[in-house]
Amino acid sequence: MIQIGIVGYGNLGKGTEIAVAQAPDMELAAVFTRREPETVKILTPDVPVVHVRDIERWKDRVDVLILCGGSATDLPVQTPRYARLFNVIDSFDTHAKIPEHFANVDAAAKETGHIGMISVGWDPGLFSLNRVYANAILPDGTDYTFWGKGVSQGHSDAVRRIAGVKNAKQYTIPVEAALEAVRSGQNPALSTKDKHLRECFVVLEDGADAALVEKQIKEMPNYFADYNTVVHFIDEEEFMQNHSGMAHGGFVFRSGRTGVNKENNHIIEYRIKLDSNPEFTTSVLVAYARAVQRMYSEGQSGCKTVLDVPPAYLCTQSDEELRTRFL
Amino acid sequence: MIQIGIVGYGNLGKGTEIAVAQAPDMELAAVFTRREPETVKILTPDVPVVHVRDIERWKDRVDVLILCGGSATDLPVQTPRYARLFNVIDSFDTHAKIPEHFANVDAAAKETGHIGMISVGWDPGLFSLNRVYANAILPDGTDYTFWGKGVSQGHSDAVRRIAGVKNAKQYTIPVEAALEAVRSGQNPALSTKDKHLRECFVVLEDGADAALVEKQIKEMPNYFADYNTVVHFIDEEEFMQNHSGMAHGGFVFRSGRTGVNKENNHIIEYRIKLDSNPEFTTSVLVAYARAVQRMYSEGQSGCKTVLDVPPAYLCTQSDEELRTRFL
Repeated sequence: MIQIGIVGYGNLGKGTEIAVAQAPDMELAAVFTRREPETVKILTPDVPVVHVRDIERWKDRVDVLILCGGSATDLPVQTPRYARLFNVIDSFDTHAKIPEHFANVDAAAKETGHIGMISVGWDPGLFSLNRVYANAILPDGTDYTFWGKGVSQGHSDAVRRIAGVKNAKQYTIPVEAALEAVRSGQNPALSTKDKHLRECFVVLEDGADAALVEKQIKEMPNYFADYNTVVHFIDEEEFMQNHSGMAHGGFVFRSGRTGVNKENNHIIEYRIKLDSNPEFTTSVLVAYARAVQRMYSEGQSGCKTVLDVPPAYLCTQSDEELRTRFL
Repeated sequence: MIQIGIVGYGNLGKGTEIAVAQAPDMELAAVFTRREPETVKILTPDVPVVHVRDIERWKDRVDVLILCGGSATDLPVQTPRYARLFNVIDSFDTHAKIPEHFANVDAAAKETGHIGMISVGWDPGLFSLNRVYANAILPDGTDYTFWGKGVSQGHSDAVRRIAGVKNAKQYTIPVEAALEAVRSGQNPALSTKDKHLRECFVVLEDGADAALVEKQIKEMPNYFADYNTVVHFIDEEEFMQNHSGMAHGGFVFRSGRTGVNKENNHIIEYRIKLDSNPEFTTSVLVAYARAVQRMYSEGQSGCKTVLDVPPAYLCTQSDEELRTRFL
C-alpha cells in the first residue's frame, strides 16, 4: 500500500482524503496541519492529525506527501522544503511562475533523490496535457482554452471589495457562439473577453446603492470593463442556497490543418464539467501520486510535471490489463 | 534529423508523407512498396521508392519505419518482421487481437534491441489514452465511446455485397439524444445500437428493386437489423460528388462520481472531428515516431503502446519550452 500524507486540511485536503479512500492501493498515513491538531476533525477514523512542525518524524512512514496549500504563498515555500524530506506533489497553478517553481523544486528534490511533481490538477494539468498532445499531432493550428462555467475567486474578491457589497460570487461563462465558431472549424481570432461572459451575484449591505455598485463592477478595469458583464442583486438567503457550490469546468480545443494544400481541418475538443472543483483536482493529484511512487521506485528524481508521466503510471491495473481493457 | 521510412503507399502512406513534411525534425528517407517502384508516384521530390524485398539494405539509413499496411493481413506479419531490423510503428486496430500482436512484436523487437510501437492512431490511440486518463482520475464511473460521423468500411462492404447494389457508403452517426444524456450526467445504460444511427447511400444497378434492397439492408443481422437504419438511393454522379470523402470522428466520455456520499458527478468529454481520417491517423503516427526515436536513444526496447509514452516525448520543443508554453 502506498502511504499518503496530506499537508493542509482545507477543501483540497479533504478532497484528497476522499480520493485516497477510493484508491485500492493507497492508505492515508497522516494529515499535517498548521492548526492545533486536536481542532482538526478529519473523515477517516484512526488516522493521526499531526502538527506540521513534527512532519520530519514521518519521513520514513509516508511514501508521497500531497501538498494541499495555496499557490500564492504556501506552495512556493512548502514544495521545495518538503521535497528534501519526501516525495511530494502539488497543484501549483500560477502559470507565469511555473519555471521558477520548477527550478526550486528540482534543486531541492535532487539533493536527497526525491521526486517533486508540480502543477497537477486540471489547468495546469489535464488541460496542459491536451494542449501538448494536440499540438504534437496537429503542428499547424490554433489553440483555444475556455474556462467555466465556474466561480472565479479573484473576480469574486474584486466585487466584494466594493463599498456596499456584503457578499458576491462571479461566474466565468464560456460564450456559446464562440464555442460553436471554434467547433465548426472557422478558426476565429478570439481574445479572452470574446470567449467569456462574466455573471455576478451580489448581496448588498443595507442602504447600499445598487445602481452605483453595478456601475462600479461593470467599469472596473482589467476585471470587468472589457467584458460582457451581467449583475444580479439577490438576498443573503438565495446567495447561501444557490451560490455555495464549487462546480467548474472548461474546454480545450485545437483546430489544425493537414493536406498537400492544407485543405483538411481537424478539431480536437476536450471538455470537463465538474460538480466539485476541489474534489476533481484532488482526484487528479491522487492518480499522479501513484505515478510519483512508481517513478521514485525506478530511481528517478527531481521535479516532474504531467508532461513527463507515461499514462499507464497513473493506473492501479497492470500494463497487460490496461492494453486489454482500454487500448 | 530523424530518418523516416514508409512501408506501403496507400492513403496512410501518403498521409504519413504529408505529416513528415510538416515535421521540422524529420526527413523522409525512402518509401517501400510491394508494387513495381517505378509505378508508384510519391509527392516528395528526390526520395527513392524502393521495393520491399530490398528493405534490409536500408537498415542503417532509417531511424523509424512507419508501417502503413492493413490490420487484417499486413501488420500481423510486417510489424514483427521489420521490428527485427528497424524501430517500427504501426496503427494496428483490431482491438481483440492486440494482446497477441503485442506479444509477437515484443519478442521480435527485443531480439535486436529495437522498439516496436503498435496501435497508434485515434482508436486505438488517442481514444485509448483518454479512457486510461479518465479511468485513473475517476475510478468510480462509466465509459462511453461514440464513433462518427464517419464511414464504416465493414458496413459499406456488407451493403455492396447485396445483389443489385452497384456502390454504397454507410455512415455511422452518433445519436444526439444519447450524447446529451451522457453529457448531462444521467449515466444512461447504452448499447452500441442505442448510441449510433446507420445511414446508407446506395447506387443501384439498372433494373434493381429498390424496395427489396432496402429490406435486405435493414434486416441484415449483426450489421443493421438491431439499428435505426436509414437508406437513401442516389445516382452515381451524386455518389461520386458527395460520398468520396474520408471524414470521421468520435467521442470518448467518462462520467464519474466523487464525494463522501458520491454526491458529485464529473464529466470528461474528448471529441475529434476530422476532415480526413487517414491524414489525422498519420499525424498521430508521426508524432509517436518521434517518441520511438527518443525511447530507442534512451536504450529502451520491445513493444510499446501510447500508454507507455510520456506526452513530452511527442514534441519537437524542449521540456523547458513545453512547460512555459503549454503547462
